[in-house]
Amino acid sequence: MIYNDTIIALSTPSGVGAIAVIRVSGKQAITICDKNFKSVSHKKLVEQATHTIHLGHIIKNKKELDEVLVSVFKNPNSYTGEDVVEISCHGSPYIQQEIIQLFLREGCRLANPGEFTLRAFLNGKLDLSQAEAVADLIASENEASHQVAMQQMRGGFSIEIKTLREELLNFASLIELELDFAEEDVEFVNRDQFKNLVTKIVNVLKYLIDSFAVGNVLKNGIPVAIIGEPNVGKSTLLNALLNDDRAIVSDIAGTTRDAIEDEITIGGIGFRFIDTAGIRDTVDVIESIGIKKTYEKISQSQIIIYLFDANIVSNNKSSVSRIITEIEKIKNKFPLKAMLIIANKVDKLKDAQKSNLKTLIPEVLLLSAKEITGVDSLQQKLLDYINTGALKNNQTIVTNSRHYDALLKALEELQKVQHGIDSNLSGDLLAIDIRQALHYLGEITGEITNDDLLGNIFANFCIGK
Amino acid sequence: MIYNDTIIALSTPSGVGAIAVIRVSGKQAITICDKNFKSVSHKKLVEQATHTIHLGHIIKNKKELDEVLVSVFKNPNSYTGEDVVEISCHGSPYIQQEIIQLFLREGCRLANPGEFTLRAFLNGKLDLSQAEAVADLIASENEASHQVAMQQMRGGFSIEIKTLREELLNFASLIELELDFAEEDVEFVNRDQFKNLVTKIVNVLKYLIDSFAVGNVLKNGIPVAIIGEPNVGKSTLLNALLNDDRAIVSDIAGTTRDAIEDEITIGGIGFRFIDTAGIRDTVDVIESIGIKKTYEKISQSQIIIYLFDANIVSNNKSSVSRIITEIEKIKNKFPLKAMLIIANKVDKLKDAQKSNLKTLIPEVLLLSAKEITGVDSLQQKLLDYINTGALKNNQTIVTNSRHYDALLKALEELQKVQHGIDSNLSGDLLAIDIRQALHYLGEITGEITNDDLLGNIFANFCIGK
Repeated sequence: MIYNDTIIALSTPSGVGAIAVIRVSGKQAITICDKNFKSVSHKKLVEQATHTIHLGHIIKNKKELDEVLVSVFKNPNSYTGEDVVEISCHGSPYIQQEIIQLFLREGCRLANPGEFTLRAFLNGKLDLSQAEAVADLIASENEASHQVAMQQMRGGFSIEIKTLREELLNFASLIELELDFAEEDVEFVNRDQFKNLVTKIVNVLKYLIDSFAVGNVLKNGIPVAIIGEPNVGKSTLLNALLNDDRAIVSDIAGTTRDAIEDEITIGGIGFRFIDTAGIRDTVDVIESIGIKKTYEKISQSQIIIYLFDANIVSNNKSSVSRIITEIEKIKNKFPLKAMLIIANKVDKLKDAQKSNLKTLIPEVLLLSAKEITGVDSLQQKLLDYINTGALKNNQTIVTNSRHYDALLKALEELQKVQHGIDSNLSGDLLAIDIRQALHYLGEITGEITNDDLLGNIFANFCIGK
Repeated sequence: MIYNDTIIALSTPSGVGAIAVIRVSGKQAITICDKNFKSVSHKKLVEQATHTIHLGHIIKNKKELDEVLVSVFKNPNSYTGEDVVEISCHGSPYIQQEIIQLFLREGCRLANPGEFTLRAFLNGKLDLSQAEAVADLIASENEASHQVAMQQMRGGFSIEIKTLREELLNFASLIELELDFAEEDVEFVNRDQFKNLVTKIVNVLKYLIDSFAVGNVLKNGIPVAIIGEPNVGKSTLLNALLNDDRAIVSDIAGTTRDAIEDEITIGGIGFRFIDTAGIRDTVDVIESIGIKKTYEKISQSQIIIYLFDANIVSNNKSSVSRIITEIEKIKNKFPLKAMLIIANKVDKLKDAQKSNLKTLIPEVLLLSAKEITGVDSLQQKLLDYINTGALKNNQTIVTNSRHYDALLKALEELQKVQHGIDSNLSGDLLAIDIRQALHYLGEITGEITNDDLLGNIFANFCIGK
C-alpha cells in the first residue's frame, strides 16, 4: 500500500457548471499548488493556516489559466488526513482538464476511484464500514437509503461490533494463555462469563443479520413488476406513478416491447417499477420474447401489480373469467410474492359495473391511470408491504452484502464456540473458532484487511472521492 | 432591481459526483446557514473570519442531513460582494436537493441563471463585459476561446473603452456648457483637440470592429463543410479527424443521411466539421433532401472540403473530368469560400497514378482517411486559413456580438461627429451625436444599462454562477 505520492482528481460531476472543484491530496499537495498558483495577496499557500481560502490565478506558461479559489487543509485536519488543497475553478471542462494536466506534469498522479477515501481509511480518519457508507451516501436517492448511509457513516453498528470484538479478543487472549499452562489445568477464563459474552454477541449478530432483508430493500429500492395483457394501460400507469412520459404510450396493442425500469420514491422509500410486455398468447416473435422476459422480471420482483382493463366487465362474462384464471395462474407460479390486482380505465365504467367488478374480484383496486384516480391508494398499498418500522425508530440496519456475509460467517463460528463451551471443549479447540470469528468481525470494520478486499471496495467509488 | 433577498443555487454540474457545492449569497446568507449548520467546533459562522472553512453537519428536523464543509466569505470580499457561504456536501442529488429545499424554507430564494454574477456586477465587482466573459469562460472548449474569454475577463478592451468614454464625456460636458453661453459665442472646447480625440476613438473602434471576424471564429469555432459524392469516405475522414467512431460508416453508398456536426481542436482553434450527404443525382427522396441540406450547410461554412475517391483515376478519363466539373460548379456557386480538394483512399493507388492525379488536379491533397496518412497535412492547411496572429500576439479581440453591435453604432455616431466638426456644425447639434456615442459605449461596460439588457445577458448564464 503506497501512498507517498500526491493524487489529483476532479471531485465535482463532469460537464459544464458554474464552478468545478479539483482535489489534490498528499505530501506535496500544497507545494505543487504553490508552484502554479499566484495569490492576489502574493503569499505562499504553505505559509497559510489550515481551513483558509485564497483568491488568485492558476498560472500556465506565465499566462493566467483561470481565476480560482484555493482551500488549504493541513494534515491531519483534512478529509484524507494528508495535506489537501481544493481548487475551485470556473466550470469549463477545458479549464478543468488544463489544470489537472498542469498538476500531473508537476508530479501529481491521477487518483483512482475512491482513493481519497481509501487514504482517509488508511490514515485512521474512518473505519472501513464508514468508508463504504460514503459511497452509499453519494448513491443515495431517497430518504430511506440516505438515512441508512448516514447512520453507517456516523459509525452505525461498526462501533458496537468493534467494542464486542475487543471484549472477545480479550477473552481469546486469556484462553490462549491457558494453553501455555495446559499441564497445570488452570482456567483464566470464567466459562460462564465467557458464555454470556458469546451469547450477547450471537444475539447482536442475529439481529443485524435479520436487518439485512429490510436494509437491502431500503438501499436498492423494491422491485415491482407491472404485468397484464397488452393495451390495458401499463405504460400509462407507470407514467402516472412516475409523473412523466418516459414510456412510449400508444393505442396499438403491444407497443411496449422493452422492459422499462424506473424508480420513484413513495414516502421516502424507493420502488423500482418494471413495465413489461403483456402475457397474451401471440404469434409475433418479438412479443414472445417480451412474454418470456415478463416471467423473468416477475421472478426478480418483490411485488407484482396485475393490471387489466376494467371495461371487460361490460363484455361477456368469459372475459372476466379469463382474467381470474390468469391471476390464479400467476399466483400459483409465484406463490410467495405479494400481488396487487388493479382494474384500470374505470373512468369509463358506471357505478353498477364497478360494484359488479368488486363482487367478482373482491381484492381488486379500481384505478384510472389516465385521470390519475386511485393512484394514491395504490401508492399506500405499496407502502403497506414494507416494514418501515426499523427506519422510523432509527434502529441499526445492515445494508451492505459484504457486511452481511461477514456477519453470517462470524455467527457460524460463534455458534460453534457456544456448542464447544456446552460440550466442555478444550481451550485450544475453542481458540480456533474464536480466532475465526474475530477475523470475520475485523473484516467489517477494517481491522482485518488486505489489498484485494480494499481494491474491491474502493473500485466501486467514483473518482474524486 | 431588487437584491435585498438571499439567493441559493447548486453551483456544480448536476448529477452524481464526489462532492457538490451549493452557493448562498445575500444579507442573510450566513445567519440562515448558522440556523441549519452545527459546526464540530460548536462555533457560529457569523463569528468566523472571512475566507475560512468549517466542518460540521447540516441539520434537518434535528437529524444530521450531511457532513459538510462550509466556506464563509464576508462582504465585500466575495464573488458577489455580498455575504456568501459555499456548502461543500456529498455529491448525491438527493442530498443537494434536501439542503437547497431546507434553505428555501428558511427564507432563501432560488437564484436565477447568472444571478450571482449579476449581483457581482451590480456591486461593482466586475463591469458588464467582464461579467459576460465569465459565461464565455465557462463555455470555452479550447485554447483560443478560453484565451479570448480570459482576456475579456481581465478587463480586455472594456478598460480602454471606459477611459476613452470618460475623455469624450469630458468634452461633451464642455460643449454642452457652451450652449448655456450660446449668445456670447464662446468655445470652451478646442475643436482641434476634440477632433483628435474623436479620430483616436474612431480608430480604436474600427480596430475592435475588425477584430470581431476573427474573434467570432475563435469563440465559436470555424465551420467546415465536408462534401463529395456518396461513398468517397467522408464519414471515415471525419472519424480520422475526430479520432472516434461517431459517424456511421458502412460500404453502402448514401449511409450518412443526417448532417453530423462535431468540433475538434487543431492547434488550439476549434473547427466544427459538418459531414453531409453526397451531391450525386439520385431518385431517393430522403437522399435528395440530404443534397439540399448539403448546399445549405456549404453556405453556412467558412471552408469547404471537397472529397473524392482517388481510385477513379484508374477508371476511364471521364470520371476525373466529372470531378473537375463538379469542383468548378461548387467554386462558381460559392466563389468567396476557401476550398480544399482532397483525394481519399490513395492507399490503393500506385505512385504513377498519384502523379497522374496531381497533374490533372494540381491543388489536390492526397489522403487516406482509413490509414490516417495525409490527415496531418489537412490539419495544417486548415490552420493556414486562420489568421491566428491576433491571438498569438495577445491583441484585444471582440467576440461578443452585443459588443460588436454597440461598437458599430458608436462608430456611426462618432463619424457623424467628425463630419459635423469638419462642417463647423454648432455645439448643440454635435452634442446630440456625442450623447448617442456615449450611450453606446456605456452599454458595453455597463455604465449605461437597463433591466431588459441585463435580463438578456444573464439569462444565458447557467444557474449557480
